[in-house]
Amino acid sequence: MTRTRTPQSTAPLIISADEAEIIGYIRRSQEISRTDLADLTGHSRAKITTLVNDMIERGLLEETGSGDSSGGRRPRILNFNPNFGYVVGVDIGATSLDVVLANFKGEALSKRGQVIDVREGPDSVLSCVKHLIQDMVEEMEIPIDKLYGIGIGVPGPVEFSTGLLIAPPIMPGWEAYPIRNFIREAFPHAVVVVDNDVNVMALGELRVGAGNKEQHFFFVKIGTGIGSGIVCDGKIHRGSTGCAGDIGHICVDPNGIVCHCGNVGCLEAMAAGPAIARRAVEAANNGSSPILARYLENNHGVLTARDVAAAASNGDRAANEIIQDSGRLIGEALATLVNFFNPSLILIGGGVSSIGHQLLASIRRSVLHRSLPLSTRHLRIDYSSIGGSAGMIGAVYLAMDNVFQVAN
Amino acid sequence: MTRTRTPQSTAPLIISADEAEIIGYIRRSQEISRTDLADLTGHSRAKITTLVNDMIERGLLEETGSGDSSGGRRPRILNFNPNFGYVVGVDIGATSLDVVLANFKGEALSKRGQVIDVREGPDSVLSCVKHLIQDMVEEMEIPIDKLYGIGIGVPGPVEFSTGLLIAPPIMPGWEAYPIRNFIREAFPHAVVVVDNDVNVMALGELRVGAGNKEQHFFFVKIGTGIGSGIVCDGKIHRGSTGCAGDIGHICVDPNGIVCHCGNVGCLEAMAAGPAIARRAVEAANNGSSPILARYLENNHGVLTARDVAAAASNGDRAANEIIQDSGRLIGEALATLVNFFNPSLILIGGGVSSIGHQLLASIRRSVLHRSLPLSTRHLRIDYSSIGGSAGMIGAVYLAMDNVFQVAN
Repeated sequence: MTRTRTPQSTAPLIISADEAEIIGYIRRSQEISRTDLADLTGHSRAKITTLVNDMIERGLLEETGSGDSSGGRRPRILNFNPNFGYVVGVDIGATSLDVVLANFKGEALSKRGQVIDVREGPDSVLSCVKHLIQDMVEEMEIPIDKLYGIGIGVPGPVEFSTGLLIAPPIMPGWEAYPIRNFIREAFPHAVVVVDNDVNVMALGELRVGAGNKEQHFFFVKIGTGIGSGIVCDGKIHRGSTGCAGDIGHICVDPNGIVCHCGNVGCLEAMAAGPAIARRAVEAANNGSSPILARYLENNHGVLTARDVAAAASNGDRAANEIIQDSGRLIGEALATLVNFFNPSLILIGGGVSSIGHQLLASIRRSVLHRSLPLSTRHLRIDYSSIGGSAGMIGAVYLAMDNVFQVAN
Repeated sequence: MTRTRTPQSTAPLIISADEAEIIGYIRRSQEISRTDLADLTGHSRAKITTLVNDMIERGLLEETGSGDSSGGRRPRILNFNPNFGYVVGVDIGATSLDVVLANFKGEALSKRGQVIDVREGPDSVLSCVKHLIQDMVEEMEIPIDKLYGIGIGVPGPVEFSTGLLIAPPIMPGWEAYPIRNFIREAFPHAVVVVDNDVNVMALGELRVGAGNKEQHFFFVKIGTGIGSGIVCDGKIHRGSTGCAGDIGHICVDPNGIVCHCGNVGCLEAMAAGPAIARRAVEAANNGSSPILARYLENNHGVLTARDVAAAASNGDRAANEIIQDSGRLIGEALATLVNFFNPSLILIGGGVSSIGHQLLASIRRSVLHRSLPLSTRHLRIDYSSIGGSAGMIGAVYLAMDNVFQVAN
């Protein structure tokens, strides 16, 4: 296993620039016809017909639908031929691993999940990924040379150009580990692409979720940490070194507690899962929440964000306050980014986001309070539309987006 | 004068999609040859030759340079034909107005400046703009139908799609005023494009300044207020309602003073020109700065950021502290945006930015302290490379970027 910094670009399928343009539009739209393509690309109907027919002949695209019974002719819809090839999406979390095998249309054929501990290191976790993929490929009888791409989301900062993790706080041993090479040894026909988990979730929302019609939006993941994936101009914005979207270390309280990064009052230290749990223990111990005190006793001295959610749904005032405070701090940080970036949508996801409706209400209130009127005029703030599947779905599209290479 | 919301898109020059691609590359590069174009577009050398020859024949492009004496053949460089047409750049500030007439190569032919008060309202200020442009056009004997574009930067939030100012804090009477229609009445052949002044400055840096080779950067203007222009993927990022870049109202101190926006501790209220002046008066009055106390007496009870600069350059400790505090607060706000957006460059400009070297040093220190290592690995923070001309230069390119319309 070499640790060379090879770029993430050995796409297996070569296409022309015109074909890439067509594929780009098909990716962004669920329903697109030849006429739409002619309008969108500015090419003649004849040129589109030639290009599309050729791609259908090669088995890459297919056309479905036909005239309907009401007399009008419904245009035929273009999409990828599902059986042209296959991709795998991998969602590596701190404590779990989800893998999905999909056809070229993005339809899931088979899924696998497993409990892991990402701190066990890359050899152990990636071996597990390899075996799960091999399992699914065998089960579905997929020829190995038809597996064109594997997209992998990881819970740490990734230098996207090389696919390497850089100083990942919760992944000791993964620093600059050649994930791509490890996986490609088993699946030599597939391009392997690695990205930060929140970027991958944002990509899932962009392709098939609530972000599908949006040009500029964020996906915010609230869990053990807090991170965001940015969509700018209909594409994932990774920034100049590939680490854009790190919002966990925005200072929200100059008098707050010290974060693991060494700074004071970071959003993630003040409002993510562990902060919620810490405040819950305080509320249990200082008598302000009898319910949390009971949970603390039953749980052998440990509370989690989930316990706070349970207490809040039982009407516990202290638990509700903890959730609202967390939402307020997250909203204050997001208000800064709303003024700066002016998105039309913010999607909230991650394990802790399901803690209670007050969280979203409190985030919304706080964003509206601190943002400028023009920047919130058309802003929606909502829970993720594809929820816990965002990582897996996004990883499928991360693979799909990278299987083609444009010929010069 | 009607107040209809017409879009900012009545470009006078129609070109094909292939020509637009070539023009795009010529805009972004100062030195580009036919061979470069073939490499960049992926088109054949023959196709590029046909396209370029046609654009040269129509007078739009010209080719300069030739084989050099050392035997090697230096490629001929393509650029716009300067005499094909003309554009005007207008930089409207709170108290001044600068106008430049340029040829199609972006070279300034004539300039005019005038002291104004933007609060006098649009009729007065825009009449002045109109007369200054008429003056220059007559002086240079430019046929009126060769004036293809006028770009205008204004110190307030602009809804870019319509070119209208929305709730501009320092421009009473300009709200939704039809600036474009007013100017087009006098110059009917020109497309008129209006944008926020900081976006325009960022565009100037992108085309011919320090941002020319960068994909992702900010321009930060520090004056009476604080604002930013964002370049994402080599283009101005305006956001979903066109008001991206508003960083003046980021909360940098929850215990700070009340801002004119109604919130507490906004960056602009704590660190821009008026805040610096306010702290200077305090330092003069409480005895911590004898120099500022003398200035205060000489200036009849008024101090400005300029006085603080003078005191600091005379070694005044209190003045230096004021500048450093301002830089620290600006740097803290920028650190948030660096973690979020991951730019490779931040350019600092605006009237107050020239207050002293400590300002830049203090901004840099504070950004490095609060940002994550991966996001500052290749980050440069510098003063604007084109300084006070950024607004005028940017407005010329704002016009240039909008004179062409791609035919379907």
